[in-house]
Amino acid sequence: MSAGAASVIPVSLVAAVDIGGTTIKAALVDGDLRVRHTLRRPTPYGADAVLDAVTKVLAELDQLADAPVAAAGVVFPGLVDETARIARFSVNLGWRDLDLADLADRTGRPTAIGHDVRAGALAEWRLGAAKGYQDVAFVPVGTGVSAAFIADGAMVVAGGYAGEIGHLVVEPDGEPCPCGGRGCLETVGSASALARRYSALTGEDVSAALEVLDRMRAGDVVAAQVWNQGVDALADTLATVVTVLAPEVVVIGGGLSGAGPALFDPLRARLGARLTFQRVPTVVAAALGDQAACLGAALLALDHLQTRSGE
Amino acid sequence: MSAGAASVIPVSLVAAVDIGGTTIKAALVDGDLRVRHTLRRPTPYGADAVLDAVTKVLAELDQLADAPVAAAGVVFPGLVDETARIARFSVNLGWRDLDLADLADRTGRPTAIGHDVRAGALAEWRLGAAKGYQDVAFVPVGTGVSAAFIADGAMVVAGGYAGEIGHLVVEPDGEPCPCGGRGCLETVGSASALARRYSALTGEDVSAALEVLDRMRAGDVVAAQVWNQGVDALADTLATVVTVLAPEVVVIGGGLSGAGPALFDPLRARLGARLTFQRVPTVVAAALGDQAACLGAALLALDHLQTRSGE
Repeated sequence: MSAGAASVIPVSLVAAVDIGGTTIKAALVDGDLRVRHTLRRPTPYGADAVLDAVTKVLAELDQLADAPVAAAGVVFPGLVDETARIARFSVNLGWRDLDLADLADRTGRPTAIGHDVRAGALAEWRLGAAKGYQDVAFVPVGTGVSAAFIADGAMVVAGGYAGEIGHLVVEPDGEPCPCGGRGCLETVGSASALARRYSALTGEDVSAALEVLDRMRAGDVVAAQVWNQGVDALADTLATVVTVLAPEVVVIGGGLSGAGPALFDPLRARLGARLTFQRVPTVVAAALGDQAACLGAALLALDHLQTRSGE
Repeated sequence: MSAGAASVIPVSLVAAVDIGGTTIKAALVDGDLRVRHTLRRPTPYGADAVLDAVTKVLAELDQLADAPVAAAGVVFPGLVDETARIARFSVNLGWRDLDLADLADRTGRPTAIGHDVRAGALAEWRLGAAKGYQDVAFVPVGTGVSAAFIADGAMVVAGGYAGEIGHLVVEPDGEPCPCGGRGCLETVGSASALARRYSALTGEDVSAALEVLDRMRAGDVVAAQVWNQGVDALADTLATVVTVLAPEVVVIGGGLSGAGPALFDPLRARLGARLTFQRVPTVVAAALGDQAACLGAALLALDHLQTRSGE
């Protein structure tokens, strides 16, 4: 599409697709970043099935649209190199080195690709809790823990390998981690680890970290121990991130960010206690909830159109 | 200076000044990055004394020059925000928030400012061991340990606070560190820590890490223990840096980089053993030795001139 052709059709709508481990979240978003429609579909397994599902979701969004859908933004989980347009690895969805160079041909429109965590970070940075900062760490704490960094006002990609803070070691002799390591943050401080560790210690089945929190509030000593170990592990890890990259703001996302002061008060205090001369960051909850990655996909689509029209 | 005026005087020489804790290293460098003259002068204490010394060194270099010295690059130790032109903090030289906005007036020529470690990283990246990479960690191991990072082809500054890896905790119950923490890498894995720990354990005074290495080679069990703990601490720290930022190459500089295979063989092996899914970096010795920061200062001066002539 030439710049001339692009100017005939004003950017009215873009399609945003966030491929999650279990659910594909999609949205129609307008140029003012208003969400017009949303869709959720189950994520199938395997590269071809996922790409077919993306094409189908985009066709459904086209049906819902009252204006041309000028571009798409699709964000992938796992290891993604959006610069090279390759989804390197997803253990949950079963691909390795998935080449996305021809995704625009499949979708029939200009298509930006991205990484779910960095897309979430982009949305929190442009629209949410990290607005106005130049140095940002976005840390979703859910089933796993990962991070995306903005340094000096630029997203850090590093071939798609940056930000794997869920696998920083917080207990050198701790539990085995599926990554092959031992005592990784994800085995102690992720939302799923909190639930799993409580269940293992008590024999009582809890399925969510916030249930551990409820029990702690009701006076359960084991729940308090598990919660505190998780917060300590997160504080240790954030101290490491601060020492290495010095973010001005740390935005906690994911399921655990809904815990409120029970998480944020001790996390801020313990992080502060671990820092001596380093720049102390503001630690805040994400503002966009589970919409962040999908909004980030919309931003990538809009940026992609702008870049193309400027070519 | 207008672009027209700049074009009258071709860039023939720049002056480079590296302000160290004990020595100011200065050089005249030509546009092909050949070092024409070098000077070393003791570093005085205090902001005014240091800035006077810089002016004097530049005047000495002017005397040595056989062509106009078109610009200067001056790099400072400690915490430096070169973007804001502020030297934030030097414990050794005794300043805090030293405003360098008017340095060009003092020196009478366009003057770039920088940070010694990032300047060294810039030189190793453009001219030395990290040439051709986009994601780089430069890690000088000497009296202290610090790092400068290049991510996606851009130097990370983060207000001057990034890269303080000497204060990542490697032994949670370890020795107190002057920073106020405990068990920081600098207390175990810096060149000075190796010498100090050996002396403390044996009561025998050694002044340099390479002397500990000599004793290890001669069969000294305590020397081997201290050396191995140091290498372990460095490997732990590099594993952290790799997990957070995924450099393609780690360039080890500073005094310890002269240790050769006795350092690099176990360091590579132990780093490799700590990584599971992460991108494994090449680990190499710095190529430019103690010239790196001064060459980096020359590169900053040349870049500064180029930016100005393009304004």
